[in-house]
Amino acid sequence: MITESLKTELKRIVGVKNASFSKEDLLCYSYDATNSPVLPEAVVFPGSAEEISLILKMANSIGFPVIPRGAGTGFSGGSVPVEGGVVISTERMKKIIEIDADNLIAVVEPGLVTWDFQQEVEKLGLFYPPDPSSLKFSTIGGNIAECAGGPRAVKYGVTRDYVLGLEAALPTGEIIDTGVRTAKGVVGYDLTRLLTGSEGTLGVITKAILRLIPLPESIRTILVTFADIRDAAKTVSDIIKAKIIPSTLEIMDSVSIRCVEEYAKAGLPLEAAVLLIEVDGSPESTGKEAGRIEKVCLENKALEVVASSDKKEIKDLWNARRAISASLFRIKPNKINEDIVVPRSSIPELISGVQEIGKRRGLLIASFGHAGDGNIHVNVMYDKKDPGEDDAAQSAVRDVFDLTLRLKGTISGEHGVGITKAGYLNMELSPAAIEAMKRIKNVLDPKGILNPGKIFPKSAAPH
Amino acid sequence: MITESLKTELKRIVGVKNASFSKEDLLCYSYDATNSPVLPEAVVFPGSAEEISLILKMANSIGFPVIPRGAGTGFSGGSVPVEGGVVISTERMKKIIEIDADNLIAVVEPGLVTWDFQQEVEKLGLFYPPDPSSLKFSTIGGNIAECAGGPRAVKYGVTRDYVLGLEAALPTGEIIDTGVRTAKGVVGYDLTRLLTGSEGTLGVITKAILRLIPLPESIRTILVTFADIRDAAKTVSDIIKAKIIPSTLEIMDSVSIRCVEEYAKAGLPLEAAVLLIEVDGSPESTGKEAGRIEKVCLENKALEVVASSDKKEIKDLWNARRAISASLFRIKPNKINEDIVVPRSSIPELISGVQEIGKRRGLLIASFGHAGDGNIHVNVMYDKKDPGEDDAAQSAVRDVFDLTLRLKGTISGEHGVGITKAGYLNMELSPAAIEAMKRIKNVLDPKGILNPGKIFPKSAAPH
Repeated sequence: MITESLKTELKRIVGVKNASFSKEDLLCYSYDATNSPVLPEAVVFPGSAEEISLILKMANSIGFPVIPRGAGTGFSGGSVPVEGGVVISTERMKKIIEIDADNLIAVVEPGLVTWDFQQEVEKLGLFYPPDPSSLKFSTIGGNIAECAGGPRAVKYGVTRDYVLGLEAALPTGEIIDTGVRTAKGVVGYDLTRLLTGSEGTLGVITKAILRLIPLPESIRTILVTFADIRDAAKTVSDIIKAKIIPSTLEIMDSVSIRCVEEYAKAGLPLEAAVLLIEVDGSPESTGKEAGRIEKVCLENKALEVVASSDKKEIKDLWNARRAISASLFRIKPNKINEDIVVPRSSIPELISGVQEIGKRRGLLIASFGHAGDGNIHVNVMYDKKDPGEDDAAQSAVRDVFDLTLRLKGTISGEHGVGITKAGYLNMELSPAAIEAMKRIKNVLDPKGILNPGKIFPKSAAPH
Repeated sequence: MITESLKTELKRIVGVKNASFSKEDLLCYSYDATNSPVLPEAVVFPGSAEEISLILKMANSIGFPVIPRGAGTGFSGGSVPVEGGVVISTERMKKIIEIDADNLIAVVEPGLVTWDFQQEVEKLGLFYPPDPSSLKFSTIGGNIAECAGGPRAVKYGVTRDYVLGLEAALPTGEIIDTGVRTAKGVVGYDLTRLLTGSEGTLGVITKAILRLIPLPESIRTILVTFADIRDAAKTVSDIIKAKIIPSTLEIMDSVSIRCVEEYAKAGLPLEAAVLLIEVDGSPESTGKEAGRIEKVCLENKALEVVASSDKKEIKDLWNARRAISASLFRIKPNKINEDIVVPRSSIPELISGVQEIGKRRGLLIASFGHAGDGNIHVNVMYDKKDPGEDDAAQSAVRDVFDLTLRLKGTISGEHGVGITKAGYLNMELSPAAIEAMKRIKNVLDPKGILNPGKIFPKSAAPH
């Protein structure tokens, strides 16, 4: 599809150094965390919205897929070029254009790494809460495209809640500004939130206006162990029932704990379940909240409640927490990492249900994640090369989704649909809702050039 | 347009008692707070999403406008039937279907009055923060359609931040569920936020899943007076710079204070400017924050800082604050009530600029509102029947918008575009952004039957 003259044109737009067609480079832009790579035909590294706009206009006139890409850390195939075409990597566009501390906003380019941004704003006593586990690699643009969450979402919300406005190149190439750089704004339709979480299918984000908040004065970290994961799950639900909203409320089951301990040695207790809880705010209020949380834990048969204020210890705990996902590959060569969400009071039922599914399908399933907002990462471990296990794993995923929806939950809290959940879309959404989404996709991307093959199941794909 | 057979059909759908075509009834559904009434041809009071769906399908097949309506308290003409047609009043659909205290969510019908809902959730120790001044009359459905804000937005955000999911009838009649009833969810495009703030042009909201938070333990109310409004404005900006986020931070200028005092006699000090500030949270943290706020006020030449904890006194203050808008009619028979927003650090410049515009145009302009988030209600007072004043008022509005956009603000923080700001849309949005919005409108409402004549300027209107 990408002819020699097209290659010349791409080089003309982004500069010779900023386009590549070599196999070794293309390989680097073929995958994401789902480990289902497809080679693109070109990768370009534009330096501006205008260059992105020109590429999109060319894609519309000639007809080739364009795939926007942050760091490729996604869990749903969002940045995989499933139909080939040209990958637009935003890695050169990583400037912090402005941090306006007086007005609690920042303006940044999409390729900025989330962690780098957070370090800069924290120097000014400010806080950008979204914290996906990939935050040391993943980019603001990717986070917005997927509406990334993270442990702190239970108190602070997700990426969507911090995006005030965007600059984006529409699939047809026009560059638009959406939203505001003020605390409020309701002029016209909310294109900012329509683009946020649209998984790179409705526009390429070229700039973001982000909301900041004051950095909390103090944090308390509490590690709680349980002999039975059902007690841990009930504790999560009881903390919320008691109207305490911790800044994070993470659960890890014994499979996750054992795996990550072998890998990272953070000193996690090798019990059936662990809750990692943080409260933040003024020192007075965090002290009081921590006390109330300890009481709820002990009422639910916690084995031990340990409060830590040692910075190194807390950092190790969090590094371990973030390493769980990668460490699970010690068990099996493949995993299906789901991120279902259920109402918080249904977490005990979900945890028991997932254990039963594992038993019934003969598979090890590791569960961990953001229990505080009901968002559990259910990891089905298997060996793809074993046809029996592959079948069992696929069936287990469907079982987990069935259970989730029966509990009035959703099949994705933060990873998105991409390619991995496209086949299950109609389990959650009605035909009329899918049809409305497809109409919006078609009218903004009439040629279907932007990140094709995502979200919508093939049979129901736009065009 | 509404023939006898159509009337019969409407009566068949909603029941004979729930449709009216009499002039006296139609008059009641012809207006909103903009006082620019247009008579509809029918008003219906459906009892279910299914009835609304049938009406929309009929409107598509026959071709007549359908105008969804909450309580008609809007400030931009959103519920005015400017092209006639059938008003769908949601007043019979006002049930609280469910309050799930364990999971901090509620499911409600659109016609529920916001205040009534808040009273019910507060009985359970829960909190639904959005608080437009109209909250004792306006409905959840109307609040969602306009993305209503209110004084508490400075800390708690706007209606958008509390809508997790919706049931809505699309313009073509299909009933869809959007979003989730969990804390998170990213399956498919964010139709929930696309509908929120779409001013009744993309769907009729028939049910809402709302997020609740724990009710703050304590509130402190502080009334601060200034001899010069510029000092008050600088205080607002300095409080935010000091990284204190009060739960409300309202400003009133001398015109507003004098008007509302004559009307409501709440004991407001008759000075040049007043700040009404609240902080909430644990008693320890509110005490500390109140102390820090007092310090910032005194550094900015506050005449007096009075903390109140008397419930009756606080209630009177808030009733006075909410009565400002209505009381202004004591000055002049007409007003243009704008709700521009600027970055908080630009409030002093905005206030000075608005005073200059008033002087230059020979008009009294009253300014008050949600200074904490930069959202100032600028009220241009005039007499419509005096052609000179009418012209001057229109020019003053354009001057205010020019100033606002120069300060990197937005022309509407919470009232929406409707009919009153449609003519100014292109001052803020680019042609490409307006075009993208129109494409979405056209593809979801191909016959243009749902709330026509809103948002888009006539020359640029869809269809």
